Amino acid sequence: MALEFDLIEQYFLPLSQGFDGVEIGIGDDGAVLNVPNEHQLVVVTDTLVSGVHFPVDTLAYDIAWKSLAVNLSDLAAMGAEPASYSLALTLPDYDAVWLQNFAEGLRALSAQFKIPLIGGDTTKGPLTITITAQGWVPNKQAILRSGAQVGDLICVTNTLGEGALGLKLALESEADGGLHGLSSTEKVRALNALNRPMPQLAISADLRGLASSAIDISDGLLADLTHVLKHSSIRQGGGKKITSSVMLGAEVELTQLPLSSGVKRYVKQTKEWGLPLTGGDDYQLCLTVSPNNLAKLSALLSAKRVQLTVIGKVVDQAGITCVKQGIAQNIGGGEKGYCHF
Amino acid sequence: MALEFDLIEQYFLPLSQGFDGVEIGIGDDGAVLNVPNEHQLVVVTDTLVSGVHFPVDTLAYDIAWKSLAVNLSDLAAMGAEPASYSLALTLPDYDAVWLQNFAEGLRALSAQFKIPLIGGDTTKGPLTITITAQGWVPNKQAILRSGAQVGDLICVTNTLGEGALGLKLALESEADGGLHGLSSTEKVRALNALNRPMPQLAISADLRGLASSAIDISDGLLADLTHVLKHSSIRQGGGKKITSSVMLGAEVELTQLPLSSGVKRYVKQTKEWGLPLTGGDDYQLCLTVSPNNLAKLSALLSAKRVQLTVIGKVVDQAGITCVKQGIAQNIGGGEKGYCHF
Repeated sequence: MALEFDLIEQYFLPLSQGFDGVEIGIGDDGAVLNVPNEHQLVVVTDTLVSGVHFPVDTLAYDIAWKSLAVNLSDLAAMGAEPASYSLALTLPDYDAVWLQNFAEGLRALSAQFKIPLIGGDTTKGPLTITITAQGWVPNKQAILRSGAQVGDLICVTNTLGEGALGLKLALESEADGGLHGLSSTEKVRALNALNRPMPQLAISADLRGLASSAIDISDGLLADLTHVLKHSSIRQGGGKKITSSVMLGAEVELTQLPLSSGVKRYVKQTKEWGLPLTGGDDYQLCLTVSPNNLAKLSALLSAKRVQLTVIGKVVDQAGITCVKQGIAQNIGGGEKGYCHF
Repeated sequence: MALEFDLIEQYFLPLSQGFDGVEIGIGDDGAVLNVPNEHQLVVVTDTLVSGVHFPVDTLAYDIAWKSLAVNLSDLAAMGAEPASYSLALTLPDYDAVWLQNFAEGLRALSAQFKIPLIGGDTTKGPLTITITAQGWVPNKQAILRSGAQVGDLICVTNTLGEGALGLKLALESEADGGLHGLSSTEKVRALNALNRPMPQLAISADLRGLASSAIDISDGLLADLTHVLKHSSIRQGGGKKITSSVMLGAEVELTQLPLSSGVKRYVKQTKEWGLPLTGGDDYQLCLTVSPNNLAKLSALLSAKRVQLTVIGKVVDQAGITCVKQGIAQNIGGGEKGYCHF
């Protein structure tokens, strides 16, 4: 894009300046960063496409915020501290106001974690944002998807289904009947979860040594929990191809799912558990924790005002079973079948 | 893209496995890499769009090669050793043969430098490739754009204009008259420079402490040299806004430009210096070197079979003057005016 240098200088250069740990930011062939002693590098990357990962009418500020947040959420799930991020921005056209708001959204979230933008590229095309973020984790202390053990408790941070409720609100028109009588506070909360998710970086250091596995809930609780079970099964099988006989499973107690009043109302009225189970876009963390570590982890998180809820346990039988007060449930959703997959 | 996990497992997972220094590759929320002692992290990123950065009929293998090469070229220009790369791939549709060839192109180049793919994302849309690469450089030894001094010699590696000649070949049809009688060897060489540029990583360590600045020639010699002069002027001015009175300039001797026989023939027949001066897509390095360091650097590069040619010098008068045997030239190109900008 011919405007690349102008764009970078005007909107993005200020996001690169004034940070510790950055020897060279934007402006050279690459950025140069100092490395903390005895740490490993963690790298995450995620692409968001307009109309696929966010509604087409999402505000530029929110698009920027979310694009960065979903990457920082991955760093949080690894137990890492964020260091920096780079941006590849594909734009259909040059719109100075849009760009200014986009840069402002990046600034707002990156300032909270004191991380610089260290490079980028702008190209012309359908609106697409790829962010790659770097972080640091003390040697050998990264929290992986693959550490879950039979008997571990399955926990989630804060509440589930909020982002998916926000998406319903964003896509449904007023004519649809006001979405089951949600209060304006409930609507604001859900839309905020959709558009400005907060990565759980405040607790990422607390998880190290206490959580046996962690993953951020971006694809939906059941899908992400399946990733954990699969990776943990493969690791415990010594990396060999796994069969159902060595596949770990999970039992999830629906009445324990932490739900906001809005999501609770929606589930109650629709009898649909899709929002908290498969909705995705939550950016809360799903953790597995040995029962011995639960009290300690819970206290650490509570001190940071992060609620930790036990929603089930890891079992030695493949598949995820959703139970309601101990009785296995078939959780709607038509042929997709949310549970038992 | 729903196929993400399949795509990743089938084509991209093998590019992640079997490397030293990678604790966790593809498959978790992020990758975890070991850090060499006393090094800084270098991060580069570049996006290539079909029809903009390469012709739409470019082979999948070549698209992959080039996407990685342009990033590794930036690492080379910083004096860094490559460590790893991540890939954001936007695809119009799922084409298994295309993907297999694309993965093969990545494999071919990454294997030469023993670097793993450590993460990625696939989305649906017009073909766009963003690669972010990480590298390491010994503390405080990164080579910057901003180190050029008055009196430094301006050098380039190998030959100039080859990639731009390749682009002309790729875009012109046979009916255009066979492009000025290029031999088939000359055509192959030019198309190879366009489609499979070789990043100058073999010499990146040799540059440290000897080159006062470095940049890779992706935008064209004059544009990239302008970046060097601008950044060096700003640095020497203590970061203040520069005026023409403190702006460094350059004198470039056209007869010294290292040209392959194909580019030489094209320039001679057209009287146009655009290919080597502004064509870009060369991925050779433009270096500034104190006269005291030239012999040593030249010998180190010669041992790696990389030719280093002095093409001019840094002067204390703003602007780039192209001279031919000492006489200032007006270098065609109509109103764009290649020189004196």
